[in-house]
Amino acid sequence: MNQTVGQLGEQGVLKLVQQFCPADIVGDDAAVLATNPGASIVVTTDVLVDKVHFSDRTTPPHSAGWRAIAANLSDLAAMGATPLGITVGLGLPPETSVSWVEALYQGMSDCLQQFGGAIVGGDVVRSPVRTIAITAWGQVNPEQVIRRSGAQVNDVIIATGVHGAARAGLACLLSEGSTFSAAEQVALIRAHQYPQPRLNVAYQCHQLGRVAGMDSSDGLADAVLQICRSSNVGAEITYMPMPPALQKHPQGKDWTLYGGEDFELVLCITPSDAQTLLQQFTDIRIVGHITSALHVWLRDSRFEPELLRLDRGFQHFAPPG
Amino acid sequence: MNQTVGQLGEQGVLKLVQQFCPADIVGDDAAVLATNPGASIVVTTDVLVDKVHFSDRTTPPHSAGWRAIAANLSDLAAMGATPLGITVGLGLPPETSVSWVEALYQGMSDCLQQFGGAIVGGDVVRSPVRTIAITAWGQVNPEQVIRRSGAQVNDVIIATGVHGAARAGLACLLSEGSTFSAAEQVALIRAHQYPQPRLNVAYQCHQLGRVAGMDSSDGLADAVLQICRSSNVGAEITYMPMPPALQKHPQGKDWTLYGGEDFELVLCITPSDAQTLLQQFTDIRIVGHITSALHVWLRDSRFEPELLRLDRGFQHFAPPG
Repeated sequence: MNQTVGQLGEQGVLKLVQQFCPADIVGDDAAVLATNPGASIVVTTDVLVDKVHFSDRTTPPHSAGWRAIAANLSDLAAMGATPLGITVGLGLPPETSVSWVEALYQGMSDCLQQFGGAIVGGDVVRSPVRTIAITAWGQVNPEQVIRRSGAQVNDVIIATGVHGAARAGLACLLSEGSTFSAAEQVALIRAHQYPQPRLNVAYQCHQLGRVAGMDSSDGLADAVLQICRSSNVGAEITYMPMPPALQKHPQGKDWTLYGGEDFELVLCITPSDAQTLLQQFTDIRIVGHITSALHVWLRDSRFEPELLRLDRGFQHFAPPG
Repeated sequence: MNQTVGQLGEQGVLKLVQQFCPADIVGDDAAVLATNPGASIVVTTDVLVDKVHFSDRTTPPHSAGWRAIAANLSDLAAMGATPLGITVGLGLPPETSVSWVEALYQGMSDCLQQFGGAIVGGDVVRSPVRTIAITAWGQVNPEQVIRRSGAQVNDVIIATGVHGAARAGLACLLSEGSTFSAAEQVALIRAHQYPQPRLNVAYQCHQLGRVAGMDSSDGLADAVLQICRSSNVGAEITYMPMPPALQKHPQGKDWTLYGGEDFELVLCITPSDAQTLLQQFTDIRIVGHITSALHVWLRDSRFEPELLRLDRGFQHFAPPG
């Protein structure tokens, strides 16, 4: 039961992971997938390193696998794309237990099962540190690509779900969240370990007009600031979509703005398109609007007004004069 | 000049590597590329780990970058596909020198410049070990996909280039190649450090009829054995394409059969299609033919006849009774 990857050998590990791939994909130098006529291909990639991006303390292997896939599917959703396939490059120390690898792939597979796409290729190699390199690709009608650069003045900013829950869940896992009730902790930890890429909302955007946006992998504030920088506009955030558990928490505002890894979508659309979406999803909110001022302000009546900035190295966004 | 990645910071490293990407690709959650109408997408991925797959002793960073790309483009060539794009996931210890990263990307970029494709996305993260995760994708007319499984009895087996040179070059780099002349060493080391993916031959295959095959990344013998296993046929190798320097070398035969990393193509086609290809390329050879016997024999008049096997773990190929 506690067999290691080193004991199983390379061919054994390959056989194990190929069980999670469609049978007709395995066996050539590369995977082949059909695309819709006229579709553009969207590709995104992430590298995750043990103790840097995941750890046994906060993410059991099933969750590590789920999150790795969810993050990449969220990038596809942020572009308006439908998942086609995933490649998984895995670096493993020989002493890694086989059950860890199985649980990792089961987590990836469960996420793909729910949201679409399949593991169509990969590589398993020896490495001194557990490393997961995911590349996801999808397809999109070129006229339905969602880009950061398309926001226009008077657009409504909508956000899916809530923000800050994943960061609060991490705090709970690191025993820094003792002010939450047991039930709140369960929900917040689930938000951290099993984020839900918002492909459902991305697909509904295909029926709308112009859509600009991105996902909130680096936080709500980052998403709004990046969209504004790319679109050469400003914004006011008038409603922060906080989880109830965070409303009175001392770090609730910070985690909601800057926590990251909620993998929700932040979209800029016309007010009438916003009404269309609001009728289709109960968990999306208008969180602000686009302005011509080139600044991003937090003007939520529950908090003091505050000018938001990309402080950590994003010098491209011109600071207010 | 000797600045480290840690000193440059994440944003600085990202800016550095983005210089090697087309300007219109950078800036969204994922890269978007157009495809030909009706094309299928081919994807392949490799993970390379410092001191496992490359090392400063044998592969300076420019060569490490070139080889990483060449190996993946060779997989695309082996499928008959045209390169579209590459994603590069990079794990770097903070003490890595910036010049190492620059040379790595220059090597990748030089290989792409020569053979097609572009770096369209990536991820740079902190890791305790230098790790390069490459995913390459390309497009192919679904009717022109080259698979391992299409070989038929009486097909001619052709191989591009020579085999064993990359392994001999590695021996030279590891100071195990002292029996070679200085000029031979230069050529063999070049074969190891700068392999040439055979997209030129792959493209010419589009004008032929049925083509089965793969690349010889794991050696000539492995390629023939894998094709035979997938196609449920056997083969005779009647001419080993050895580099002149290896003809009298005690390990010449072994390196030619099992050395690997020459990244040539091994293709099974009809005799008349073979004549067409032989007229177009001076460096391809007929190396054998497909048989119904389910065994793979070496029957090169320069050597004793020998039955070849996938000994190291490839149990799927039925051993001769």
